[in-house]
Amino acid sequence: MKRLFLLIPIVFICFPGLSQSPDSLLIRKIFDNALNNRDAYNNLRQLCGETPGRLVGSDASIEALKIMKNYFEQMRADKVYLQEFTTDAWMCDSASVFLVSGTGKLKLLHCDALGPSSSTPEMGITAQVVEVHSLDEVKKLGKEALESKIVFYNRPWDNSFINTFYGYGNMVDQRGRGPALAAECGAAAVVVRSVTNSLDYYPHTGSTRFGEVKIPAVAISTLDADLLSKTLENDPGAKINLFVEAKDLKQITSYNLIAEITGTEFPDEYIVVGGHIDAWHNTQGAHDDGAGCVMSADVLRLFKDLNIRNKRTLRAVMFMDEELYQSGGVAYAESVKEKGEKHLFALESDGGAFTPRYFTVSANPEVVATLAKFQPLLHPYGIDEIKAGWGGVDIGPLKDQGIPLAGYGTDSQRYFDMHHSPNDSFDKINLRELQLGCGNMAAFIYLIDKYGIE
Amino acid sequence: MKRLFLLIPIVFICFPGLSQSPDSLLIRKIFDNALNNRDAYNNLRQLCGETPGRLVGSDASIEALKIMKNYFEQMRADKVYLQEFTTDAWMCDSASVFLVSGTGKLKLLHCDALGPSSSTPEMGITAQVVEVHSLDEVKKLGKEALESKIVFYNRPWDNSFINTFYGYGNMVDQRGRGPALAAECGAAAVVVRSVTNSLDYYPHTGSTRFGEVKIPAVAISTLDADLLSKTLENDPGAKINLFVEAKDLKQITSYNLIAEITGTEFPDEYIVVGGHIDAWHNTQGAHDDGAGCVMSADVLRLFKDLNIRNKRTLRAVMFMDEELYQSGGVAYAESVKEKGEKHLFALESDGGAFTPRYFTVSANPEVVATLAKFQPLLHPYGIDEIKAGWGGVDIGPLKDQGIPLAGYGTDSQRYFDMHHSPNDSFDKINLRELQLGCGNMAAFIYLIDKYGIE
Repeated sequence: MKRLFLLIPIVFICFPGLSQSPDSLLIRKIFDNALNNRDAYNNLRQLCGETPGRLVGSDASIEALKIMKNYFEQMRADKVYLQEFTTDAWMCDSASVFLVSGTGKLKLLHCDALGPSSSTPEMGITAQVVEVHSLDEVKKLGKEALESKIVFYNRPWDNSFINTFYGYGNMVDQRGRGPALAAECGAAAVVVRSVTNSLDYYPHTGSTRFGEVKIPAVAISTLDADLLSKTLENDPGAKINLFVEAKDLKQITSYNLIAEITGTEFPDEYIVVGGHIDAWHNTQGAHDDGAGCVMSADVLRLFKDLNIRNKRTLRAVMFMDEELYQSGGVAYAESVKEKGEKHLFALESDGGAFTPRYFTVSANPEVVATLAKFQPLLHPYGIDEIKAGWGGVDIGPLKDQGIPLAGYGTDSQRYFDMHHSPNDSFDKINLRELQLGCGNMAAFIYLIDKYGIE
Repeated sequence: MKRLFLLIPIVFICFPGLSQSPDSLLIRKIFDNALNNRDAYNNLRQLCGETPGRLVGSDASIEALKIMKNYFEQMRADKVYLQEFTTDAWMCDSASVFLVSGTGKLKLLHCDALGPSSSTPEMGITAQVVEVHSLDEVKKLGKEALESKIVFYNRPWDNSFINTFYGYGNMVDQRGRGPALAAECGAAAVVVRSVTNSLDYYPHTGSTRFGEVKIPAVAISTLDADLLSKTLENDPGAKINLFVEAKDLKQITSYNLIAEITGTEFPDEYIVVGGHIDAWHNTQGAHDDGAGCVMSADVLRLFKDLNIRNKRTLRAVMFMDEELYQSGGVAYAESVKEKGEKHLFALESDGGAFTPRYFTVSANPEVVATLAKFQPLLHPYGIDEIKAGWGGVDIGPLKDQGIPLAGYGTDSQRYFDMHHSPNDSFDKINLRELQLGCGNMAAFIYLIDKYGIE
């Protein structure tokens, strides 16, 4: 209560319209609807159940587009269409890692290929393992120590970061750039400790960027990484047999899915809300990022159900290929540029459907300050801050065109237990947390459409 | 960032010492330790695995005390002892509800007895069902309509409350006072829709208060409540066969568990941190309230591990019997009064181990304001507010002695999916969320011990 008393006068001073009842009443209506509607939840259940592993180029990715297209058509969005583009892709059929200790014992570790790992020969690669904890260490060791070896990146997660995205950022270089560096040093293959705070048997895959030389690269579970490290301590000559069967797909056709509710006043001005429909080959992709897609779709549903007459055209975009090559986001931004479509704003959700905490805005400080004034209206629904920060990978390419971007921020504690692993499954979704995401995204978009961001 | 800039000057003005580095550094140390320690998690795993259903009077409740006593002794707390008291108790052996439709078909519903339900005859009670949605409706219907009937309270959860504790408060009168009222009207038994926002097959039990007449009373799952309601629509003569086998236990001996770290300056002044060790007969009681106990124990561990020399005596209390008769909290407060023990402050955690959000303070406005000044130091760790509000059921009886109380507040979205049901199991605990609770409770206590609350 104390806090509300503090905020109300500030709102009056800064933005008189906001504290008047129509906005807070309309937002209350949005939440009353969102908290009693299961469309987003049921759509996500369907995506998870019917289209796990929907990496770009997969049949599942096309099925997922169909499911969401069908939903938008059923809700009678004004336009529903696929945006075609071509991209390289990659497909993983199989991966395995056996630990071969000094006594000749074989142990199968929990692993998955990083994308786009190259394949091994049919019998795999068997080689000695060199454990390292940083890219610098690999540079120092160089070709002499690493040629034909399997490089094992094993710097663990630092638990001290409170927001787990910082923990991720602090560790992910090993996965993102480690394999390319090891390849430069002549390594035969790379094994990476899964980028997660969780100690368990799930392998967490993810993307890696190669230079000219591609080598096989896999993630192993954190518990297996600990086991491998301990084994190497006792038996420095221990080997790994690593097998990957994967293939690169060249210039395939894929699609973003777009659905619109035409604006009543400025139909040629667009507000985008989106998530990415693709997910790694090893997961249902419930939080990453089926949730972002179904919540974005629910923003449109809420506008239609409540008959909110948006001034600008509201466009939900289900971006393809966030995970591997980010080709969907690039294709979307190119199309915007080519058609000269005026975009007021783009919002992405790609942090899972956990309890709402904030919006981060990637724009100039004046825009950030303008959007931050909406925070008191969203505070009753869990939004503690609207502040400068990250927009999203898929909407990122719009930044060059000067379009203000924002990301929906949820509580981060549980995200990396699941991220890019089989653990990111539908049963980890909490109905109310998902519904609160739908409501907050819709309410934020409503305010931006109504007041603009000038 | 914006927000921090706003807060720092306020801190300087109001409480100069707080923004200096020693406090923030010490709190950082508390979290570095808490986020890398699994004692609380492992203790909770043991409680859940070895002592489910630890209602006062049960063997499991005594085993749970032993587990925590052993832990406090291992950490070399200065004092570890049981506080004996006598109380009535209740034990449930079995409960079942069969739906008997017009065609004579039997369907077993998911149910559990409310505490302290009375028993039915061996063959159960078979009677017609009268569905109601409020206590007022029961009063209006009265004896004429309800005598010898089974009253079925079925007003559903209102999803529109954002904080789910308000949703609970809005619905729980049916369980808490509904059976007594129905008994006054001569009803044979009561069936209550589970007090939860979740649509599932878990029965959520809980306490009910009878007057002079006790009757059998059970909760059925929300999905079964919907089924029963629909059946009654089609077949108003449908009956229920309800069976409960339970017994009252008179004046048994039970215990609170107390562990202390003696204060260096004011050993005769006490700061209490606690949770309740009992849990309903149908659940592991992971969030409610095994979590509160193991986090409270972890506060002591953190003080010892980090060699924080508390000025006042820090006392962790594992309260018995929060669920049924609240006898442990009453016994503790009586002992405090009897011994004339000076208590500076008492903190309780009984809202589950979800991500941290706030502390609520039950004290005079000056004390609330004093404690609220600590918020900026805890904000980096998730505490958005320290505000007036609820302390806790177990520490509640201390209020009469003028002792300031506080409750640790977590995100409420998931709590009532599990509350008082078999769904409140250890697998629902997130390690980091639990660890953040340990850290925040320890940091809050550290500040209160250091600065007092005058």
